[in-house]
Amino acid sequence: MRIRIDYTNMLSSAVGSRGLCEAELAARIEKAGEAIASLRAKRDMIRWRELPYNQGEIVKEIKAVAEDVRSRAESFVVLGIGGSALGPIAVQQALNHPRWNELPKDKRNGPKLYVEDNIDPERMAALFDVIDPETTVFNVITKSGSTSETMAQLLTVMRTLLDLYGEEHLKERLIATTDREKGNLIGIAKKYGLTTFCVPEGVGGRFSELCPVGLLPAAVCGIDIEAMLRGAAYMDELCDNDSVKENPALMYALLETLAMEKGANIGVMMPYADSLKYFSDWYAQLWAESLGKKTEGRRTGQTPVKALGVTDQHSQVQLYTDGPFDKTVTFLGVENYRNEFTIPHAADENPNVAFLSGHTFNELISAERRATEHAVTVSGHMNKTILLPEVNAETIGQLIMLLELATAYAGELLRINAYDQPGVEEGKNMTYALLGRPGYEKKLAEMEEKTSRMTV
Amino acid sequence: MRIRIDYTNMLSSAVGSRGLCEAELAARIEKAGEAIASLRAKRDMIRWRELPYNQGEIVKEIKAVAEDVRSRAESFVVLGIGGSALGPIAVQQALNHPRWNELPKDKRNGPKLYVEDNIDPERMAALFDVIDPETTVFNVITKSGSTSETMAQLLTVMRTLLDLYGEEHLKERLIATTDREKGNLIGIAKKYGLTTFCVPEGVGGRFSELCPVGLLPAAVCGIDIEAMLRGAAYMDELCDNDSVKENPALMYALLETLAMEKGANIGVMMPYADSLKYFSDWYAQLWAESLGKKTEGRRTGQTPVKALGVTDQHSQVQLYTDGPFDKTVTFLGVENYRNEFTIPHAADENPNVAFLSGHTFNELISAERRATEHAVTVSGHMNKTILLPEVNAETIGQLIMLLELATAYAGELLRINAYDQPGVEEGKNMTYALLGRPGYEKKLAEMEEKTSRMTV
Repeated sequence: MRIRIDYTNMLSSAVGSRGLCEAELAARIEKAGEAIASLRAKRDMIRWRELPYNQGEIVKEIKAVAEDVRSRAESFVVLGIGGSALGPIAVQQALNHPRWNELPKDKRNGPKLYVEDNIDPERMAALFDVIDPETTVFNVITKSGSTSETMAQLLTVMRTLLDLYGEEHLKERLIATTDREKGNLIGIAKKYGLTTFCVPEGVGGRFSELCPVGLLPAAVCGIDIEAMLRGAAYMDELCDNDSVKENPALMYALLETLAMEKGANIGVMMPYADSLKYFSDWYAQLWAESLGKKTEGRRTGQTPVKALGVTDQHSQVQLYTDGPFDKTVTFLGVENYRNEFTIPHAADENPNVAFLSGHTFNELISAERRATEHAVTVSGHMNKTILLPEVNAETIGQLIMLLELATAYAGELLRINAYDQPGVEEGKNMTYALLGRPGYEKKLAEMEEKTSRMTV
Repeated sequence: MRIRIDYTNMLSSAVGSRGLCEAELAARIEKAGEAIASLRAKRDMIRWRELPYNQGEIVKEIKAVAEDVRSRAESFVVLGIGGSALGPIAVQQALNHPRWNELPKDKRNGPKLYVEDNIDPERMAALFDVIDPETTVFNVITKSGSTSETMAQLLTVMRTLLDLYGEEHLKERLIATTDREKGNLIGIAKKYGLTTFCVPEGVGGRFSELCPVGLLPAAVCGIDIEAMLRGAAYMDELCDNDSVKENPALMYALLETLAMEKGANIGVMMPYADSLKYFSDWYAQLWAESLGKKTEGRRTGQTPVKALGVTDQHSQVQLYTDGPFDKTVTFLGVENYRNEFTIPHAADENPNVAFLSGHTFNELISAERRATEHAVTVSGHMNKTILLPEVNAETIGQLIMLLELATAYAGELLRINAYDQPGVEEGKNMTYALLGRPGYEKKLAEMEEKTSRMTV
């Protein structure tokens, strides 16, 4: 069972002059060997690619810890942001009940899951309205231990737990996921003897879903993490193929980077399944932060846009069909949903409504996806579809690895470093300055220069 | 208490050559009188602008119905999509507890709220896992009554309720919001004697939040809808000002349309508050569907992108700073949050963490917003900030009207019809064809032509 990409509608033969010309694509395919070679040469650096293969022992440990948490926790709270949050949210939504936290305990195969990825004071207060610290286990995730948002949350949670239960009991209620040696969190973890998982060397935040960052929350919520890794391994192998036409990640990267050259500075991802909704968020970080770069005066980057089918047919598709030729749309389709639901007869007297009865919701959502693909295509806009036979742990593992490798290949094709994020330093440093962190006094002056504001 | 726009950073004096030149802006301001005049001339057509003034009686009715629902329902389920869903979701998230549905009944000032805006079979099944039909009131919202998704949901719900409680009791459990006379829903509503609210003439889906579409769900959840309308009226008056520099909606439209001319085909909206998160979704429909148009061969439209501060600093800001000059960022800032939360001391031995202690989450999130504005600005990207003194029913009413009028003014400046959506017809018709609706047989042939698919 494998996911496939249908890219018929990226080509000019389907969408007309705004599509990719087949000769152009063929020429690029010829040259794509370079990207395969250069990515292979990085294999020792981009250690996230090895995660499906080298975690036998870690998976055992994760499962043991998860079993312990499951046996005693009613809530599991992840404190993390960006790459430490988006993967866990996406996987939970994909593989567990859509209203997991609202289900009664006996219908839920694990504790409630909260992923706290913001420092809004209203939301922080709201969390404590719905969890009971007595039956909650926290998992703080930050590789560097210098993420202000996560550390602020950690201080809050630690103070509460230390006051309620004392230093010696912190380790029962708090798990750390961080760098093996460096940073502020590992020091805290050692001091209190916390169970600690490592974010391996060469695994950046946005590529970390298949390491303990993502695997622990998934295992705690009863997800088959070995199947996820199996799916990822399978996709990794497919995407090492020298033939571009057999290599889904490279083909994805080639199509998108070519489309970018033709002016598609926007890439919409539009899953037709509520379960895949947050994969768009996860992908948006992966694609934006990896490829949005300034190199030798050259600026690259395609802005990811999150949409949801069919919902956003009633919100965005007017723009996607009649609007400018500045985007590609990537649909995520599902062949078999995990529920079937027949539209019953209840207004047979009205033929304008009754034609729906007897069809399933499944038929309706699939028809709408195909119809939207068609409408976007005939309006001349490039689009492709990633088709999942069904949403399960294996296909989700495949999808994660497919998009990670597509991003990596796109980095090679664009000749940029896909693994840094220098552009966020300015904001971080200014935050430190505004909070009066020692050493950042001068920074503040930069901001105070501009005084005359234009407001309305 | 009014919201304001700070547009200092849209100008070249702040962001450099990629910003709007002040002379250019001044020239446009001169000519903006035309847009004011043409929008005023439409006042009789765009009836959504009158909603703050002409609903005295309707508000009384809504409040009475809401009181009845509140007295007996534990869940209130909206069946609607697009404009019938995005406003209710945004307002609920803005003005009620962030985890409303998870709160125990005695801490919730109204029933749980579910807005079902998709036809995913897994999600439909999940809804019935968490609601009890016995204590649920449904509100089906579709102006035309021809929205397949909503009608499919309605048939499902009707069948369940008719089977359980019989025809004569449907009216206690189902409320309709639709056109006064036309369409399929009004017929059903009359047949069963349902309580029915009208979507007035001249109020399209995406401009309908301040009519019963949005007001009923809000009132059911205990929101002060009169305050919302008061805020909207206040903003409507401000935005009728002949002086552009005193007219926030017109200034917003002028800045964005000018930025579009300079290549900003992307408009990011980035609230720094979880409570405003879904305003980005609501706005994305409003802006995309209104302005994404094909007129006389000319294509217009700026693609809205949803982001959330500070969360997406760790996801998108790398792209917003180092990436191409193809976007504007509109921050939504909040001066006073409804909770204050101090970061406690819990790791004073580590100065790299301890500098956070003693600050509040409020200071942290505000510092991060200002720091991100600064980083986006010094990297040369246009941005502006809508500042809400606090999030309450009045400022939310202001925000809704501000963005609706900004969209309307943008429509005038772009010389397009902001109130239709012809581009979605193709997809609708193809869906009908795929579902075998009589009269659409020919349509199907268009799709079956292409047989050879390119897949990987």
